[in-house]
Parts: sequence; structure tokens; C-alpha cells
Amino acid sequence: MSDLTPLSQLGEFGLIRRLQQDITLTQPSTILGIGDDAAILAPPAGQEVVVTTDLLVEGVHFDLSFSPLRHLGYKAVAVNVSDVAAMLATPTQIVVGLSMPSRFTVEAVEELYAGMRLACEAYGVDLVGGDTTGSRGGLVISITALGQVEAGKAVRRSGGKPTDILCVTGDLGGAYLGLQVLEREKQAFLADPDTQPELDNYNYVVQRQLKPEARLDIVHELRELGVQPTAMLDISDGLASEVLHMCAASGTGARVFSEYLPMANPSLEAAAEFNLDPLTCALNGGEDYELLFTIPVTDHAKIKNHPDITVIGHLTEKNDAVNLITKGGQAVPLQAQGFNHF
Amino acid sequence: MSDLTPLSQLGEFGLIRRLQQDITLTQPSTILGIGDDAAILAPPAGQEVVVTTDLLVEGVHFDLSFSPLRHLGYKAVAVNVSDVAAMLATPTQIVVGLSMPSRFTVEAVEELYAGMRLACEAYGVDLVGGDTTGSRGGLVISITALGQVEAGKAVRRSGGKPTDILCVTGDLGGAYLGLQVLEREKQAFLADPDTQPELDNYNYVVQRQLKPEARLDIVHELRELGVQPTAMLDISDGLASEVLHMCAASGTGARVFSEYLPMANPSLEAAAEFNLDPLTCALNGGEDYELLFTIPVTDHAKIKNHPDITVIGHLTEKNDAVNLITKGGQAVPLQAQGFNHF
Repeated sequence: MSDLTPLSQLGEFGLIRRLQQDITLTQPSTILGIGDDAAILAPPAGQEVVVTTDLLVEGVHFDLSFSPLRHLGYKAVAVNVSDVAAMLATPTQIVVGLSMPSRFTVEAVEELYAGMRLACEAYGVDLVGGDTTGSRGGLVISITALGQVEAGKAVRRSGGKPTDILCVTGDLGGAYLGLQVLEREKQAFLADPDTQPELDNYNYVVQRQLKPEARLDIVHELRELGVQPTAMLDISDGLASEVLHMCAASGTGARVFSEYLPMANPSLEAAAEFNLDPLTCALNGGEDYELLFTIPVTDHAKIKNHPDITVIGHLTEKNDAVNLITKGGQAVPLQAQGFNHF
Repeated sequence: MSDLTPLSQLGEFGLIRRLQQDITLTQPSTILGIGDDAAILAPPAGQEVVVTTDLLVEGVHFDLSFSPLRHLGYKAVAVNVSDVAAMLATPTQIVVGLSMPSRFTVEAVEELYAGMRLACEAYGVDLVGGDTTGSRGGLVISITALGQVEAGKAVRRSGGKPTDILCVTGDLGGAYLGLQVLEREKQAFLADPDTQPELDNYNYVVQRQLKPEARLDIVHELRELGVQPTAMLDISDGLASEVLHMCAASGTGARVFSEYLPMANPSLEAAAEFNLDPLTCALNGGEDYELLFTIPVTDHAKIKNHPDITVIGHLTEKNDAVNLITKGGQAVPLQAQGFNHF
């Protein structure tokens, strides 16, 4: 442990110089990256720019006792890229604000940055600026992501029309179940520090929690399929909450069929083990970072064979409200049970 | 006090709705503001986009016992606008991340936002997005600002040439002296809570600390004067530190004349009262948010009568190093005593 370097030894400027060394810029629109008062970007003609910001706060969004810093760095970028993807835009740049307690070492910050760089490579994003400072509380990661999209093609959550088909990508509930596994292993460790964590059987759900991926692949595939969603958002607070947001913004109702909600087998197995209703996990488990979107009925043929897109229902007139349709055919009002951060 | 509303009562989405109500958008480049996964912007053709981010962290950058929340909100925007101005760009949009302890009330957040809105109006900036979350530590304010500048006209810190004239705007050291006054009054209050703060004689320096202004006015005036600075940055960490940054980036030395450093009378008086060397305050007191810039000698006539721009020296060849020239004509190496946040 004696090889670790306290942050105070390098100081803010020394740390910035050290982190900056490993950064490469690949976006043609990046004119100037880290190192000045601001980065300079040149969005191509005919493109609009999207911008989104997300905070990850220790003790609220993550627990350093089971979140490896590299994964955390990756996730912090991925969740912002996910918001860009949810506009049908291509992410281009991020800026990163870090507020770090003095117990952090230079090596810890490098791990965090290594994860952010990995995500930047995976999503083709340039890290072009940031601010690095101390903290009197825990670690706070603030990322702002920029993206580009052909003018007029950005997809808002408000564009859904009654009869539009409601689709989700991937599968649901996994990230929430991964969190249950991690919390259980943490309690076991606290009760007996000699316990080895038993995570091997839960790789899928734990990965979903610790290292989610933004569905940028789907953005590219929708473009290739010639499908322009009418409304879209990413599932960060749970499917139910996002469907309600979409319907509120679009001025529609919706019918979501419980039997169509996609869940992976490892998630179903974990739900059974934890005595959790899989439907609740799919509807209200957050942090899956899948995309929820609507398309006109006439585009159904284009997506129906896509292995990673599932039709889960459709929008309706507003006065039909937002309902979950059970296997038995009953309509139950959909309710959000989002996480209250305060 | 019973009328105050705990944050948990509104929840994250309720709070966002409430804060969103008062926001007006005025920038032609803002296509879509708060309320979706990302904001949508359309930078005009021929313009480049600059982007910068800054964190303000409770206990590191501010002390809520003497920083009114409205001022703090204003300052958080101003310091980001200052970075945009330092590129010779016009600020256009900001996004705001807030991590707030649960002891915060809705009314407190509204005060903070009121200050941010005031600054947005003052600088013509649209608040287009954000993220609002809890905190297990203190308040963290993370702002990312975007700006526009004619392609190729953004001013970097690296463009200074030997013989270029070195200029600063406004006056120096005031914000640091304001902090001394506030810290003294806080100690007096802690020692005897019946003490009334004595701030009337220190209005100028206290304002410089609590409610600094970004020198966007100078950006406009330089454009009107037809002056394109060769290098520029804003003075956040103290003049000495910023001159050293500029020289390192530009590959030059510099001569800064101590007798030319501009200080306001209230700052000089406060320095005398606190037994502080005014020169040290001017060189190393941070947070003045004035602009430091260089112009070619041939542009000297254009700025020499400007009441708010002072020539403090000039750049030199790199091997002449960065020196402070004392009144007696002695050359002393300039040294930064920046604040270490860790």
C-alpha cells in the first residue's frame, strides 16, 4: 500500500497533467480538447447538437464497497451516452467534473479515468474537458455529454401518437437484481469479513448493475432499418416510470402487456431466489439503460425480426390512461415506484 | 420556519417541474430545453462551439454560513460564463447538476435557482438541462456552459508571442480580501452569536467574493475595437498562476511590472487593515474572474484609453523566464501560490 500516492502530492494541476497524457481525440468535430478555459468544437453543417448532464453521487448512486472504480468510470460515461442515444443522436464529446475526498489516491483516480477512457473508446467519444476538485463528502462524478444528429431528426419523448407501437430493447430488471446480489454479499461480508463473495452464479445481473451499456448499437440499426422513432427515452428509473413520462409528454395513454416484457433467464432465476416478483423487477427496477421507443404501426415489419427489440404494447388515446394488461387480460393502472434520491 | 418544504415531499420529478416553470429560453440556437433526455441546440453555420465545466463544492469553494444561496447560484453561472468569455466566445446555454443534502428545503433550492436565473438573464444564457439528486455530503453545484464563436476566432491560452502586450481587466485581489472579511466575521459570530456582522465598510470586496461578474462586456468591447487577443484566460486562481499557465502554453517568458497591477481603493484599505501585502493579494488572491490577455504591440493604441483594461507587462522569449519587475527595477521569478483543493 505504501506505493500509493496521495492526491495532495500531485496537486490539482499535476493530476490534470497526469490524466491528460492518456487521452486521445478521434472526433473530427473536436478542434481543441483539455487544457484551456474551454474546449472548442465544430459541429458539421446540417447537424444539431444535443447536450445532457448526469451526476453520480457516492452513497446515492453507487457504493464504493462493491463498485470497482474502473466500472464506475465506465458506467458514468455510459449513462450519459445513453441519454444521447435516446435522442437518436451520436455521442461526440464529454466533459467530466470530479469532486474527490482527500482519502482518494492518485492511483484510484487513474482507475476511475481508465474506466472512463474505455467507455470513450467503446462509444467513440472524446473527453475534451473537466474540472477536478476536492470534496468534504464522498465522490461525486458529473459528466456532460454532447452529441450530433441530423437537423430535425432528434427524437423527443413527446412525439408518440395513439396506435404507435411501443418497443423496448434488450431485457429488463437485470440491473436491479444485480444490486440485490451485491447488497446481500456486502451484508454477508460485513457480518463475517472472511466470507468470499459468491458472484459467479450472478455474472449477468451483476454486470448489468456495475457496467451497463448504452444502446448506441440500436441507434445505428434503427437508422440502417430506416426507422425513425416517434418518441424515445432511455430506461434509467424503471420501465413504468419511463412509459408514464412518455405518455405525459406525448399526451397519450398506453397499453403495456405484462407477458411481453423481456427478461433474461439469469434475471428470472435471481428474482426467484430473492423471492421478488419478476414483473415488479421488470417494471420498476431501474438502471437497465435500455431504450423505450415508439414507431408507427406501418414500420412494424421493419423491426419485428430484430433479436434485440421487443414490442411490449402500444400507445392509446389519452383518456384510455396508461394501463398494464395482465396475462388474464385485466387492465391495471401502471404505477411508477421510482427511487427518491432525497 | 414551519412553512419550509422538505425536498423529499416534492421528490426529484416534482422539484424539476417546479424549477422548470420559471425558466424562459431566449437564445435562437436553443431548439429544446429542459424536459427530455437531452437538450437540442442548433449552432449557427460558421460558428464553433465552446464547452467548459466547473464544480462548486461546499466546504471547498464556498461556506454556506456566509454565502447567500442566491449569490452562490449567480456565482456558479458567472464562473462558467467567465471561462466562455476567456475564449472570446459568447455564452449561449448551460446545464446544471445539483447534488443536495436532505437538510435542504425546496425554498433553499429555489433561492439557488433564482440566483442562477438572474445570472442567465444578465449574460443572455439559456438554462437547458440538468440533473438534481441527493447528497450524503454537502451541496455540489456542477455547471457546464456552452458558447459560440466565429470559426477560427476562439482565443487559446497558447497563442501569446514574445513582445505581445500583457493586459488585465478590472482590478485584482478584491475577491480574496472579501473572503478574509467574511472569514473574520464568521469567527466573530462563532465566538459570540450576538455579534452583528460588520460588512458595510467592505461592500466592494465582499461583493467581489460573493457575486463576481464574468467580463463578457470586455469580450464585446474587444470585438468592437477590432482587437483579437493572441492569448487569453480568466483569472480564477490568481494572476501569477494564470500568467505562468499562459507562458507555459505559449512557450514564452513574461515581464510583469508590480507597480502597474490594478487594485481598487477598498481592496488596498482592506489589505492594510488585515496587514496583508497588497502585491501578494493582487498576484495570488484568486476568484477575481477578470481576464488576462495578450495583444500585439501594434494594437496598443486601440486599448490604451480603455478605462477597464490595464497594461501590466509584456511577453518575452522563453529563456527570459517569467519575472515580476519590482518598483526598484529588480526581476524576481513569478511564483504561483494557487489553492490546493485536496
